[in-house]
Parts: sequence; C-alpha cells; structure tokens
Amino acid sequence: MLKKRVDKLGLFGLGAFGRLIVKHLSPYFDIYAYDPSPQARAFARRHNVSMVSLEEAAACRIVVLATPIRAMKALLETIAPLVHPRALVIDVGSVKMKPAAWLEAALPKSTYILCTHPLFGPQSARKGIHDLEIVVCPVRIRRLNPILRFFRETLDLKVSVATPEQHDKALAAVQGLTHLIAKVMSGLEPLPTVHTTRSYDLLMQGIGLVAGDSDELFLSIERDNPFAAEVRRRFFHEIDGLRSRLETHDGNGK
Amino acid sequence: MLKKRVDKLGLFGLGAFGRLIVKHLSPYFDIYAYDPSPQARAFARRHNVSMVSLEEAAACRIVVLATPIRAMKALLETIAPLVHPRALVIDVGSVKMKPAAWLEAALPKSTYILCTHPLFGPQSARKGIHDLEIVVCPVRIRRLNPILRFFRETLDLKVSVATPEQHDKALAAVQGLTHLIAKVMSGLEPLPTVHTTRSYDLLMQGIGLVAGDSDELFLSIERDNPFAAEVRRRFFHEIDGLRSRLETHDGNGK
Repeated sequence: MLKKRVDKLGLFGLGAFGRLIVKHLSPYFDIYAYDPSPQARAFARRHNVSMVSLEEAAACRIVVLATPIRAMKALLETIAPLVHPRALVIDVGSVKMKPAAWLEAALPKSTYILCTHPLFGPQSARKGIHDLEIVVCPVRIRRLNPILRFFRETLDLKVSVATPEQHDKALAAVQGLTHLIAKVMSGLEPLPTVHTTRSYDLLMQGIGLVAGDSDELFLSIERDNPFAAEVRRRFFHEIDGLRSRLETHDGNGK
Repeated sequence: MLKKRVDKLGLFGLGAFGRLIVKHLSPYFDIYAYDPSPQARAFARRHNVSMVSLEEAAACRIVVLATPIRAMKALLETIAPLVHPRALVIDVGSVKMKPAAWLEAALPKSTYILCTHPLFGPQSARKGIHDLEIVVCPVRIRRLNPILRFFRETLDLKVSVATPEQHDKALAAVQGLTHLIAKVMSGLEPLPTVHTTRSYDLLMQGIGLVAGDSDELFLSIERDNPFAAEVRRRFFHEIDGLRSRLETHDGNGK
C-alpha cells in the first residue's frame, strides 16, 4: 500500500516538519496538503505541492497530521467524520501519549492509527535522513510490517517500536533537557566563538540543531509530555543546589 | 632552547593534566616531577618519570606548574627563592589573570613567565593533540617565537596569543557554562541512551568530555575567573525567567 506512486497522502500542516515530509515523501506519494497559512501557500507554489480543501485532504487513504500538538485535537474532531473508513492516520508530533489518546477517541474504529515521532528536524536532517531514528507507536494497526519496511528500506531510517508511554518517558529527558538548555543558552547570546573548547563546540552544535525550532514546539515538549514536568523539576533542583553551593563561597577570595 | 633533548623540565603536579604533559613532552625534555601524592608516585613508576625533591624540580631551567589553581600561590612562594635566575616558568591553569599576577609578583625579575591554557584535557586529547588550541599569554618573555614554533610545529597545536584578561573573558562563558551544564546533567543521571536525538547526542558528547574533570577544576573555573560570576548570574537569570514562564502555565490542561 505504501509504495505505489498512485497513493494519495493528505498532509495537514506545511510548517517546518510538514515541509520535510514533502521533501522525503513526494517521490512515493501524491501529496495533497491542507494548511490555510499564507506561508504554506507560498511554499506549495514553489515546491509544486497540491493545496486542497480540508475535506479533500481528510479523504485521502493515508492522512498525516503535521500540525502543532496544540491544534491537533480540534483538527481531529473536525476531520473524523470526513476520513475514509479504512484510512491510515499518522501523526508525527514530539509527544505521543496525548495524540495517541486523541486519535483513538476521535477516529472511527474502522480506521488505522499509527503514532510516530521522527527524532529529527529540518536542521538535523539537513544532509539527509539516512540512519536517523523514527519511533513508531502502533496504536491501531492491521499490517505493521509493510510500513516498518517502508521506513527502514525505502526511507533508510532506523525504526524503534515503542508504546506512547515508553516514548514519552525517554523523550521527556532527551528533548525536555536539550530544548531547555538551548533556550537558556539562546538568551545568553552573543556567546564566544574564539578560544573555544571541544566540549563547548559540541554543546553549541547540539544546541544549534534545535535553536531554529519554534517556541510552540518548545512549549509542547515541556507541557504536553506528562513526564517533562518531573524532569524539569529535577533539573531546576540541581540548578538550585549548584547555585547555592557557588554563591555561598563566591565572596571568599583565594 | 626548547628542542634539545637535554633540557630539564621541572614539572609540579602529576594530576590529570600533568600526566598529559608527561605523555606529550617526554620526547623533548627530561622531566623531573614533583608531586607528593601516592598516586603520583605510582604513575611515575609506571611511566618511568623521575620523581625528585621540590628543590630539584624548582631548579630546572624550565618549570611547568600543573597544580590546581588553589595550590599555586603558596607553591610559588615556596619555590621563588629556588628557581634559576633565568628560568622559564610556565603555568597551564584554566584561568589566567590570577596566575599571571601571582607569577609576576612572586618570581625574581630575571626569570621569564609564560602563562598558558591548553584548551583541552585528558578526554578531548584522547586521540592526540593535533590541531587542538593552546592560549598563550606572554607575561614576561624575551624570545617568544621559538616557544610558539615549538607549540605549533613540534606539538602541532593551534596557538592563540592573548592577554590574561582576554582569555578570562572568553573562557568565563566557554568553560563556565560548559562545566555548569555538565554538573547539572551529571546530577540527573542516569540519563536516556535510547530514542535520542542528534542534538541530545552532541550535547551529551560535549558534556562527556568534561564529566571526568575534578570538582576542584569546576570550582576554580567558576570562582577564580573574575568574569565567571557575571556569566553565571546571567545564566541563572535566564533559568529563572524560563522557570516562571513554564510554571505559570503548568497547571493549565490543554
């Protein structure tokens, strides 16, 4: 089902990640995109993407939701009556428990649901997606193997299968901390570019990969992942300990 | 002066960095080390390093101070009367303004003083020191060029010449922030090793390079660099802003 060029893919959202989807999936699917923003229309014209109505995008046999998490629940309720009875609906958000629950609750029982999180973005996939990881949560799926094969063999991704909960637990630290630190560091700019250490260079490279991500994504990672608050609490607790340790002795000359 | 095998080099301190010095300078110098710790004696036996008295190490024409910053001032006052009148005394600490002032104040006017900061450590130099950077502050030097040539051509380092103040300003952010973040992250262990992003991997690699550094080095970077407190103040200020922003909305379900 996934390899034939004739397949129609309805794509909701032509933001940063939606554009990456267009880049990597347009060789394999006819993409019908829905995104009412003017920037999306301009992008679609430049990249020869068919912009369609919400109804047309929702009616495709494969539907990919690449909207911000915040917008997903309302969108799902709007499109649920419009989707094909055997549609495969896929989301690509940075958290998985909330979308998985929303998708299951909103969509007809006859539809298939695959929640995914490609662990990369426009920056880390700048030179291609070879060997980058996608986490796949099979929420309601009949034939998972052809899809996994498509990800592995056709897109050349590293595929991990996990439950939404396993995903959110790991990513609460992985993304929660990375984005938190990136946010703090971006507030300190301009930062040095000379006399740098290898350690600092690597840190800055890592931060650089998410520095262009939207504030909305940051907030979603911090708030929509149910495990993020606890990771953050521990992060701030460590900070407080270090701070009082350093400030206590700051006055002492040596 | 620096290239002849016969030169004697008195090395104070056989800690992590002193050992790196032994590794990279023993092809060019006869190293006479002084370090009263039992670990240093064991290391010296294994690596065929001559352990000598404080007096003998201080009397070498080249003296390298690789002790913790904290110990340097007292050591300098002890060895000042013992150094050769035309000795070249070099330090390798992670801050430069304090050691430069101490060296100048303590050592006879006839001696030469070169403050340096090799911007690498045992981890980042694990695969060699090719093209790694050393910052050189010529505090009291007659012939700098042969020394720079030795660093550049013989050791294959990237050499930057700077004042102690220029050094400390840049490194307050470079090292101050890297070590601060590394300390916080180490307090959060165990951290995830699966479902990681490229951004997180780079961050963890960067942190990993300083994770083995001593707590003493961390404290020195934070306290002995006169610009570190201000960088830290701004870092904590950003953290506070982010924290109150996230906590304000944490209760709101979406």
